[in-house]
Amino acid sequence: MSSAAQQQATANGHQGGDDDGLGPEFTRTVIESMGPATSPRLREVMSSLIRHVHDFAREVQLTTDEWMAGVQLINWAGQMSNEKRNEGQLLCDVLGLESLVDHITFSAATKSTKGLTASAILGPFWRHDTPLRENGSTISFDTPADAQVVYMHGKVADVRTGAPLADATVEVWQASTNGLYEQQDDNQVEHNLRGVFKTDAEGKYSFYCLRPTPYPIPTDGPAGKLLNLMDRHVFRPAHIHFMVVADGYRSLVTQIFDEDCKYLGNDSVFAVKDDLRVRFVPREGDDKASLELEYDINLAPKAE
Amino acid sequence: MSSAAQQQATANGHQGGDDDGLGPEFTRTVIESMGPATSPRLREVMSSLIRHVHDFAREVQLTTDEWMAGVQLINWAGQMSNEKRNEGQLLCDVLGLESLVDHITFSAATKSTKGLTASAILGPFWRHDTPLRENGSTISFDTPADAQVVYMHGKVADVRTGAPLADATVEVWQASTNGLYEQQDDNQVEHNLRGVFKTDAEGKYSFYCLRPTPYPIPTDGPAGKLLNLMDRHVFRPAHIHFMVVADGYRSLVTQIFDEDCKYLGNDSVFAVKDDLRVRFVPREGDDKASLELEYDINLAPKAE
Repeated sequence: MSSAAQQQATANGHQGGDDDGLGPEFTRTVIESMGPATSPRLREVMSSLIRHVHDFAREVQLTTDEWMAGVQLINWAGQMSNEKRNEGQLLCDVLGLESLVDHITFSAATKSTKGLTASAILGPFWRHDTPLRENGSTISFDTPADAQVVYMHGKVADVRTGAPLADATVEVWQASTNGLYEQQDDNQVEHNLRGVFKTDAEGKYSFYCLRPTPYPIPTDGPAGKLLNLMDRHVFRPAHIHFMVVADGYRSLVTQIFDEDCKYLGNDSVFAVKDDLRVRFVPREGDDKASLELEYDINLAPKAE
Repeated sequence: MSSAAQQQATANGHQGGDDDGLGPEFTRTVIESMGPATSPRLREVMSSLIRHVHDFAREVQLTTDEWMAGVQLINWAGQMSNEKRNEGQLLCDVLGLESLVDHITFSAATKSTKGLTASAILGPFWRHDTPLRENGSTISFDTPADAQVVYMHGKVADVRTGAPLADATVEVWQASTNGLYEQQDDNQVEHNLRGVFKTDAEGKYSFYCLRPTPYPIPTDGPAGKLLNLMDRHVFRPAHIHFMVVADGYRSLVTQIFDEDCKYLGNDSVFAVKDDLRVRFVPREGDDKASLELEYDINLAPKAE
């Protein structure tokens, strides 16, 4: 060491300046390095993120090897992600973060609206180019032998007045009984088990779909690896995804869950809410479906 | 909504079970989903990580759009990473995390060892296949016209006894004056500005290198994007990397910093420690170098 450096080393501590090495003073240094042109919201978000990430590292005395294992997990997520798959999102999902953020976003806008249909996470399998279909038609184009077909119908309404919302868009997507969405499965036709429906003058929609079945999230990437390390199962309870959009109303992204599914209480991505549980009931006199589900959806005006 | 679901919705709250929606009770649910086969250390690390990540999201009321922007940043990091580049690591670096973890790991093992050479982060440019070179030789094979050549030398010793350590490995790597490491720059020869040296019987090493110059970290990926959003500069202060390994001693990864560099007080990756500052002094009577640096390195036995 040069003599100049030796004097410095004796006189001073680390860059952070506090006696304990890289303690809270170091964290303040990192936060305060943000310049004046940082947007106020980004400053708020990054300050909190930096503080929590540093506190986490100090709390568990995270080692360089452990940290690097985390870096490699994150890089792996990006490398596995593409147009049809978002492993970074799935990593967040298995830690409950997407559900939490969905809840924060939804409840922040709807604190005072009783009876509103609850939201749930979008998940990674939504597509932007799902075709419009006729009410009363099916979304299942190669129904598996082990599937139960459901006639699903309901009404989209204004949550305050109960007035039906005509011309609302009800988009639906679900996995097949093999646990795969069509974009994951070369044996399903394009856009199988997904469709967009428009409500009629009475706010009604209807279609045939499959009774959903539980399925594992993909296990060949970092989310699957992490679940395995945490000794957790990989299943999602049986569910159907919805996105409902009406002019002048807040859009709704949600899922409904079969209340008979054994994974209802321990969803691998923590999306279940009690008021999204549904019961499929027997349907009589319809040779196209053995089950029926009526499900009404209440939206809040954008102003609220 | 089915009448069964309606009753459930009235009777119960969300999956987490607390009145406030997805509050601390939800976080406990996620943590407690870890199974009995989880290793105790992973349970400790993941419990703290999940708690801090959830607290962060609640604290700033993170929205789904903001969260998805973060997911995309992380996926982008993986997609830009390869054998020669680790953008996930660089993202952590600009938030001070690698420096913090390095400090935790280093100080946990060396609490009682005064005079030990301080550690600093490895950074993403180390290579595992750097060639062994002769003491007194150069690591610069195409010295730029604007470079100042330094004769660097010193002794590796036992921090407790001061005894020299023969046959220790002193590995060094640095960027050229254009700010690029050889693996980033097609115009530099393979392994330019890097080398491995072995200490002699007196524990001494020596080589010629360049006076380091400040350089920007890569700006074409998510770390550069984040720095830009945080209105921070992208420069690292002038430094030389070291990795020192001796049988029976704890390996040292560190960097030394030119104390005259203007970025010394605000390193974009927060790696500077005061006792790693050095002063390059004029060298007389050597037509191969105009500057000199003597730098001794003290290692701790593995037992400590």
